[in-house]
Amino acid sequence: MYFKISKRAFYNSLNTVARSISSNTPIPALSGIKIEVTQNSIILIGSNSDISIQKVLYSDDESINLEIIEVGSIVIEAKYILEIVRKIDATEISLRIMDGCLTKISGNNAKFEINGVKAIDYPSMDFSKPVNQFEIESDLLLKVINQTTFATSDKETRPVLTGVNFRAYDNLIECIATDSYRLAKKVIKIENDLNFNITIPSKCLNEIAKILDKECKVLVCISDKKAQFWIDNTLIQTRLIDGFYPETSRLIPISFDSEMTVDSRDLLNAIDRASFIKNEGVSIIKINIDEYSCTISTKSQEVGSSTEDLTFISFNGTPIELSFSGRYVYEAIRSLNASTITLYFSGVMKPFIIKNNNDESIFQLVLPVRTYN
Amino acid sequence: MYFKISKRAFYNSLNTVARSISSNTPIPALSGIKIEVTQNSIILIGSNSDISIQKVLYSDDESINLEIIEVGSIVIEAKYILEIVRKIDATEISLRIMDGCLTKISGNNAKFEINGVKAIDYPSMDFSKPVNQFEIESDLLLKVINQTTFATSDKETRPVLTGVNFRAYDNLIECIATDSYRLAKKVIKIENDLNFNITIPSKCLNEIAKILDKECKVLVCISDKKAQFWIDNTLIQTRLIDGFYPETSRLIPISFDSEMTVDSRDLLNAIDRASFIKNEGVSIIKINIDEYSCTISTKSQEVGSSTEDLTFISFNGTPIELSFSGRYVYEAIRSLNASTITLYFSGVMKPFIIKNNNDESIFQLVLPVRTYN
Repeated sequence: MYFKISKRAFYNSLNTVARSISSNTPIPALSGIKIEVTQNSIILIGSNSDISIQKVLYSDDESINLEIIEVGSIVIEAKYILEIVRKIDATEISLRIMDGCLTKISGNNAKFEINGVKAIDYPSMDFSKPVNQFEIESDLLLKVINQTTFATSDKETRPVLTGVNFRAYDNLIECIATDSYRLAKKVIKIENDLNFNITIPSKCLNEIAKILDKECKVLVCISDKKAQFWIDNTLIQTRLIDGFYPETSRLIPISFDSEMTVDSRDLLNAIDRASFIKNEGVSIIKINIDEYSCTISTKSQEVGSSTEDLTFISFNGTPIELSFSGRYVYEAIRSLNASTITLYFSGVMKPFIIKNNNDESIFQLVLPVRTYN
Repeated sequence: MYFKISKRAFYNSLNTVARSISSNTPIPALSGIKIEVTQNSIILIGSNSDISIQKVLYSDDESINLEIIEVGSIVIEAKYILEIVRKIDATEISLRIMDGCLTKISGNNAKFEINGVKAIDYPSMDFSKPVNQFEIESDLLLKVINQTTFATSDKETRPVLTGVNFRAYDNLIECIATDSYRLAKKVIKIENDLNFNITIPSKCLNEIAKILDKECKVLVCISDKKAQFWIDNTLIQTRLIDGFYPETSRLIPISFDSEMTVDSRDLLNAIDRASFIKNEGVSIIKINIDEYSCTISTKSQEVGSSTEDLTFISFNGTPIELSFSGRYVYEAIRSLNASTITLYFSGVMKPFIIKNNNDESIFQLVLPVRTYN
């Protein structure tokens, strides 16, 4: 194996595939990046078994100055190759297997010889494309991820709730996340009429969000074992979470007693201020609304209390007083990315819904908290 | 106690005194900020017993809009008052003791009531000025701190080495830091002929550096118990480290066998690149110099090796080969803040010295490391 390549292009590609690599992997080879050099391309692979990223660099791409002198393959510890390539002060670098697994990386006056691992010791991975396929704009995919993953559970007691459920039917995909105290539901349209019901780990979706840094079309391929996201020459493949995702539709109220429309920034700031009182990391905030006023308050025997009058845009229906987790409502509102939002209430202990007035595709649901005072 | 004040001025002042506050203090009152309101000023105090910061806000300072309605004093938990004042969306806020220790903070539509602690429960502090006094420009004080504290020891086995030693004589102050593997020595001139020998904890000096954010004269007052730094209306007072600071002059070589002048950025980058190999967090780097070339190299059985040719500006004397801790030399060079530096060698196992060619007031000394290969 021997090739020369633009330092910047190579570093960026290494950095992309390294996103999937975890430093404490039970399979030693997975702490490395696999580099496979063919006649006309370099294939870089990083993986932590849950999520794998493959990036292909082609020699006919003039912007990367790739010159392949000898084919071959090797696995090099991710932290070493990243640090070396990042710090080399040269526009072009070369990589060459010297002897067995010893790989020389050089640029300018500096030469590094790193002990690699044979490519044969790297777990084999199946990157074949499943047949269920649809295309989605990168910014819409990013929105789906940002508006749902935060609402997934971080507890492993019900593994299926640590992922986002995607259910396709009638040219639609319903994307649902819930930790059983709150729920986010986003519906997107797709061109193909597909039929699947899968749950993708939220950790994997968050990694995909980090890689989606430009506007482009993303090809998504789904089987009952894996999901693939193709972004140009980068493939992100994630495992799915096994298990039956709960039916959530009966949790969502269909009629409401009252609704309040409010400037989302005002409500966010009021919640943020009231959140200074935390009990074991949770701030419980009370909201008290009638047709004349809205009050946000919080209280703790030990620390003290706060009250704040919030000016709303409109309120209709029965006056209501309920308590909620400050963080849950804050995250729900922030994810809607709206200037004005509407909260729909159907009772003191009933879930309430928060909507962006200009986007029917998404809503956030939060369960109130029972308080005794 | 009752006053109104500009939110921004009050927040910045709280933030300054809070720098000294540690969240896990054995004296509960010290997790709070003491607020003392007199007829014409507010005195804010934060402390962790080692370092105390006092900031005085005067009502005749028009920029802070201070209106004192009632004198009094209270101690309020630092994290609460900081978070509340930071998040209040108002240009002016008011603070008022309501009932016993319950203190109301309000601004705009928001009101917060916090349980404070009686000022009498706050440890009394002696902020009287010692007689040994001198003035120093803030940027020079900052330089002294940045060029020495990094070389102090972080181990408590010899407490005196965790501080910087300041010894005044003949209108000079010698500032020395060493962890016994390296040493930084800076000499500054002062106007008064003082005589003292004190050691200030480097943690305290680093806090002072963070507060020195503008150019001004700093008044320094020294006794055998404490050091005070007066920056306008802010006083930073630190305890001293007890114990005899070791005599270091005999460690410093006075004659040299060879010297190399080099671009400091080139050497820094070469060391940085070679530091990718770490053994228990330490990278041992070998330098090999003769009149024709300089090579920086590193090697590890497990990871691999690197070599790099460094172009120097000049070399005179006996060729030399020695090994050193990459981090020690890197930090020493960086602290000199020079475009070109000179390294002075006097033997394979003798300490070597690094100097800024344009600044005689400072030098850095590093002990080589013995290697067996």
